[in-house]
Amino acid sequence: MVTVALDAMGGDRAPEEPVRGALAAAGPDLRVLLVGDEAVLRAELARQGSADPAGVEVVHAPDRIGSDEDGAWAVRAKPDSSLVVACRLVGEGRAQAVVSTGHTGAMLVAATLHLRRVPGVLRPGIGVVVPSARGPVVLIDAGANADSRPEYLPQFALMGRLLARDVLGIPEPTVGLLSIGEEAGKGSELVQEAYAAMAGTPGFVGNVEGRDIPLGATHVVVTDGFTGNVALKLYEGAGAWLLGEVRAALTSSWTARLGALLVRPALRRLRQTADPEEYGGAYLLGIRGLAVIGHGNSGGRGIGNAVRLAARGVREGLVEQLAAGIAAERGVLDGA
Amino acid sequence: MVTVALDAMGGDRAPEEPVRGALAAAGPDLRVLLVGDEAVLRAELARQGSADPAGVEVVHAPDRIGSDEDGAWAVRAKPDSSLVVACRLVGEGRAQAVVSTGHTGAMLVAATLHLRRVPGVLRPGIGVVVPSARGPVVLIDAGANADSRPEYLPQFALMGRLLARDVLGIPEPTVGLLSIGEEAGKGSELVQEAYAAMAGTPGFVGNVEGRDIPLGATHVVVTDGFTGNVALKLYEGAGAWLLGEVRAALTSSWTARLGALLVRPALRRLRQTADPEEYGGAYLLGIRGLAVIGHGNSGGRGIGNAVRLAARGVREGLVEQLAAGIAAERGVLDGA
Repeated sequence: MVTVALDAMGGDRAPEEPVRGALAAAGPDLRVLLVGDEAVLRAELARQGSADPAGVEVVHAPDRIGSDEDGAWAVRAKPDSSLVVACRLVGEGRAQAVVSTGHTGAMLVAATLHLRRVPGVLRPGIGVVVPSARGPVVLIDAGANADSRPEYLPQFALMGRLLARDVLGIPEPTVGLLSIGEEAGKGSELVQEAYAAMAGTPGFVGNVEGRDIPLGATHVVVTDGFTGNVALKLYEGAGAWLLGEVRAALTSSWTARLGALLVRPALRRLRQTADPEEYGGAYLLGIRGLAVIGHGNSGGRGIGNAVRLAARGVREGLVEQLAAGIAAERGVLDGA
Repeated sequence: MVTVALDAMGGDRAPEEPVRGALAAAGPDLRVLLVGDEAVLRAELARQGSADPAGVEVVHAPDRIGSDEDGAWAVRAKPDSSLVVACRLVGEGRAQAVVSTGHTGAMLVAATLHLRRVPGVLRPGIGVVVPSARGPVVLIDAGANADSRPEYLPQFALMGRLLARDVLGIPEPTVGLLSIGEEAGKGSELVQEAYAAMAGTPGFVGNVEGRDIPLGATHVVVTDGFTGNVALKLYEGAGAWLLGEVRAALTSSWTARLGALLVRPALRRLRQTADPEEYGGAYLLGIRGLAVIGHGNSGGRGIGNAVRLAARGVREGLVEQLAAGIAAERGVLDGA
């Protein structure tokens, strides 16, 4: 049995969609703590026809953090907000993982404060699973650090590789360093230094370029948090736009609508593949607890998948594997 | 009459596709100088059934720069390469623009060497036109500078805005700064400093995020050359992958193939919109001559469009407008 604390007041569509997600994900081996204003949540549960659902428990948190607040300030000023309480539940051992579709910056601060960093980890990184022509790819750091130092990147590689291995089930994941040219000397100063620092990193195959993400050239793509966040949002936006245009084209005339009836089943699989809600969220890696950050505009399906992603991480012992991996790496670095 | 020098030995598909592109683009008001090994080019012209085509002239350049060579070294070591000769033709006034689908780094070096920088321009930038939900968007810098300083970005904004206005015909283009959060304080140190430096830049509306490129939130998106190149290649790769998957889905069963016959006309427009060959290339802006860099794997249609893009820039006086804009900006900065 895994227990996941869900920030039920976070994101653009709270509390309706988090409640929907909790109901979708809860089951005999997955318990969800719905964290937020108890009266609001009980009313929403009743509205969705599940006044006292099995596997879902409401934990009262009267306050909430708005998307326009400063993350660091809000976490300190609002200790009783749903996001902070959800993180604290993991810190106190009442849940094994936390999920929020709320303020990413606040989540970073709250998770670091209440769960603390894994010893030896320089900076937590956001590891997100994105689709590609050859199956899922891990992109890390997808936005935890606006400015990165070269030495963070080998750690991101290690963390991303564990995610690919233990959660995606890829036995020997390959790792590429995102750059603007495939040769070792190509790229920004940061990337050139990171390349040197990546020497000896398991699975490292060298530089990859932007197009290699959709091509699925490597299982893991390592980059600084600025580039990673731009890339993630661009990739999702490109997919949403193009699939929206395909949908529009299929209803643009009566012949197209007729044809659409015939091609729809074949296109459904693609739409699923490219849908950000399919994975539902990104792991915040490098802290001593399992944390998943979901999209602010996620629907119930996406939030349900984010909760399941968190539970999968708990079952696979992702945090423990990561701590052991970092410890081993430090041993190597220290010559132990 | 505009004369464009085309590096006919550059790119992965030379000389066949550059020759095809030259034949497609040449016309009564557009002359193309095909630069490369004369014997090879004459044979290819004959093979394509145009031994002595109107509007196309062969200029002999015996050498060529390979894609795996160091750009700076190759330009100096191979003054008689097709790429360098094509740039020199513009420097000597025998052509008004140069187009190459060859080595981007070499093109940067050769163009700067033979055409020189516009006075006051800190760094040339690559301005590329990409598709979006609301029409074409200019992305600059798409890869001329692996490392940027904050003060380059207002100049990229100015250059990108002229491109949007004079080539795309957008009367008052808006400009966004690519970041990882919309508020002014969000982003890397570079972006925060660039934001401050952008104050007073015409059309500047603040930060945009990765998803705002496909959404078309602003007409111009300004970024450093590293992020811009990653974004460009990711965007193109995402489009190619998704449209390829749509195509595969439409032929995956006999019902889908039947439906595809009916939806194909509606999808054709989208495929055109998202096709990188539609614009054919990117402007290298900030040098005293019109230079267009095309995709290494461009076909004849893409190269023809790149040649037309170059001619359009010449007709609109893009380089002169840019020099005047930079001079005016310097006047403002110097308090003149």
